Amino acid sequence: MSTIVQKFGGSSVANAERVFNVARRVTDTYKEGNSVVVVVSAQGDTTDDLIEKAKEINENPSKREMDMLLSTGEQISISLLAMAIEKLGFPVTSLTGWQLGMHTDASYGSARIKTVDTERLQKELDKKKIVIVAGFQGINKYDDITTLGRGGSDTTAVAIAAALKADLCQIYTDVDGVYTADPRKVEGAKKLDEISFDEMLELASQGAQVLHNRSVEMAKKYNVNLEVVSSFDRVPGTKVKEANKMEKMLVKGVAKDCDIARISLVAIPDTPGIAFQIFSTLASKKINVDIILQSIGRDGKKDISFTVPESELQTALEVIQPVADKLGAKEVLHREDIAKVSAVGAGMANNPGVAAKMFEALADAGINIHMISTSEIKISVLVNIKNADRAVQAIHDKFVG
Amino acid sequence: MSTIVQKFGGSSVANAERVFNVARRVTDTYKEGNSVVVVVSAQGDTTDDLIEKAKEINENPSKREMDMLLSTGEQISISLLAMAIEKLGFPVTSLTGWQLGMHTDASYGSARIKTVDTERLQKELDKKKIVIVAGFQGINKYDDITTLGRGGSDTTAVAIAAALKADLCQIYTDVDGVYTADPRKVEGAKKLDEISFDEMLELASQGAQVLHNRSVEMAKKYNVNLEVVSSFDRVPGTKVKEANKMEKMLVKGVAKDCDIARISLVAIPDTPGIAFQIFSTLASKKINVDIILQSIGRDGKKDISFTVPESELQTALEVIQPVADKLGAKEVLHREDIAKVSAVGAGMANNPGVAAKMFEALADAGINIHMISTSEIKISVLVNIKNADRAVQAIHDKFVG
Repeated sequence: MSTIVQKFGGSSVANAERVFNVARRVTDTYKEGNSVVVVVSAQGDTTDDLIEKAKEINENPSKREMDMLLSTGEQISISLLAMAIEKLGFPVTSLTGWQLGMHTDASYGSARIKTVDTERLQKELDKKKIVIVAGFQGINKYDDITTLGRGGSDTTAVAIAAALKADLCQIYTDVDGVYTADPRKVEGAKKLDEISFDEMLELASQGAQVLHNRSVEMAKKYNVNLEVVSSFDRVPGTKVKEANKMEKMLVKGVAKDCDIARISLVAIPDTPGIAFQIFSTLASKKINVDIILQSIGRDGKKDISFTVPESELQTALEVIQPVADKLGAKEVLHREDIAKVSAVGAGMANNPGVAAKMFEALADAGINIHMISTSEIKISVLVNIKNADRAVQAIHDKFVG
Repeated sequence: MSTIVQKFGGSSVANAERVFNVARRVTDTYKEGNSVVVVVSAQGDTTDDLIEKAKEINENPSKREMDMLLSTGEQISISLLAMAIEKLGFPVTSLTGWQLGMHTDASYGSARIKTVDTERLQKELDKKKIVIVAGFQGINKYDDITTLGRGGSDTTAVAIAAALKADLCQIYTDVDGVYTADPRKVEGAKKLDEISFDEMLELASQGAQVLHNRSVEMAKKYNVNLEVVSSFDRVPGTKVKEANKMEKMLVKGVAKDCDIARISLVAIPDTPGIAFQIFSTLASKKINVDIILQSIGRDGKKDISFTVPESELQTALEVIQPVADKLGAKEVLHREDIAKVSAVGAGMANNPGVAAKMFEALADAGINIHMISTSEIKISVLVNIKNADRAVQAIHDKFVG
């Protein structure tokens, strides 16, 4: 008998028919003799509808009350899925974040999981019940409801799998696995049977949108066996696991991220501590900075450019202007018509020719590169947004296709 | 400084405009220097919508999961009202039933309140916060969510007022007080400035639909000063309080209840324990029996008639048939085309002429009486449903008008 955690996203439970589809998946796993814990998100557009309801009343509500509101979405899902499983004739119980004991810090709207109680969970599993858990939500030390922010339900599932030392954590999505590139857009994109945590991390942060990075990071930390599976088709998915013993493909995937904007501080007098002042200011406002480039100094001045999520551009510009003034920068520039395209693969580290081959692919396609960033297992380039899809295809053709 | 509990029903918070209307009421009370606790129900049709969602999946879901589902309705309301109060610039926090510590028994769907914690509530009030509490819901000893059933939010408000020893518990409704009869239907109906708990109890159970009996019973038990006030108009309401020192009007109100059906067991051989067998069977199925009449025996046989809510008629008939067979009754009859009309007033007890005057009013209006039931402060008659409104008007004209 194995312990299996299964996570289903909002589109998987969007209506009664789909709820039953999930219920059958779950009970099939249960019938095989497994202990099953299911994590679900809010149905379809529920979260958006709730946000709209809030905005009608207060455009800037406190995050505490927002979490109080949004957490109802998952509570609705868990009860409906439990009712469907009851209807199929199986023993089941649903648990909210606070009932389970999903303890988080107090950062409403983007809380971090601190500890996961297993007492209640184990008690229900011992009674041979299927346990349905509300994803995305927790409780802080004040007994107040928190939500985990983007990718929260994936993270809930992995945290529970880690706490229970589960044998497998399956993330059901609307795709049937992790591909070398977005199969809807890139010709010749191939499904991977397996991928390492690190590669998945790079792919996820590059916008592959299959698994959120937080969940992969946690899975890596606690060595949770992850599997990305289709909610709709019963075909094998992609296993995400530790890198050892995996076949080393040179490039595992190509991804793009269009939710990105670039900010440049131009002609800053070159004094020590510039970077610290800029990035500590951004960090204090919790703005996620991705690629950072600092030009080589000239005439005692230098430029610093970095990328932020497009949704955080305005805030970033507001907080960075005073810093730029203080540092004596000539001006602050920004542009949003850019995209980041990345090639990811653990095999890259020991293959110095990879970057050159990637640039060659882009040059052949006549695509100009604005910025370059490299890591052990990833090469990213910034290109014009209109060239993003062509860039992905060109790189994919070169390495995978 | 007083402590005031204010309860607003679902129609009072049905949309953003009404939520702000409530928010202004609440903050006006707060600005006068009072500690304010607000209890709210689910918005408008939310509960019905959730029930429909459930029925789509499972026509007979477990009550535990139903409570898990339905309790989200109030949670949505409390967060939205808190956001509106934030928008008006006042300190506020919302609390669910479990956060507050509204402890109930484990009867999902119709739980009884056992104890109310005041620690968290008092802590928030001490911080000068307006506290918004989810009505209708609690938590049982298993840490599972329960709902209180009909009239639940009124009961929540009274329970909190009792626990806090609040100075006043205001129930905001869509009428502006308690009337001598339904003002939409009875000409000359008058608003009462005050009414005793016992009179209110009789009126409420007779279908006046202003305050649910459970809340009035609890208010009486803990001597909570109740006030029924309009959500929409700022006019004085009706105070519900202890009977001493109140002016004794002969008849305080006239009410009708059409949700009623009569069952008769005809020609039962007269042996001891008949009534016990019949009514213990009905009680075991939690069927509420109201008026009971037993005929004087004749030829060693007698008839027993009683009324039940119309919604419970089918169940009552099913459980009573085997009992009737066992007792040797000739047949079981039932009819639904009846209504109960009642005159209520603490002054009745010492005025033996009241019943006669009431029957005279009905006779003058040519209305036939099927059954009669009297108590210390109430006289009820069963009449044909088509005569119900005329009966109310005739009695009202005689005593009040």
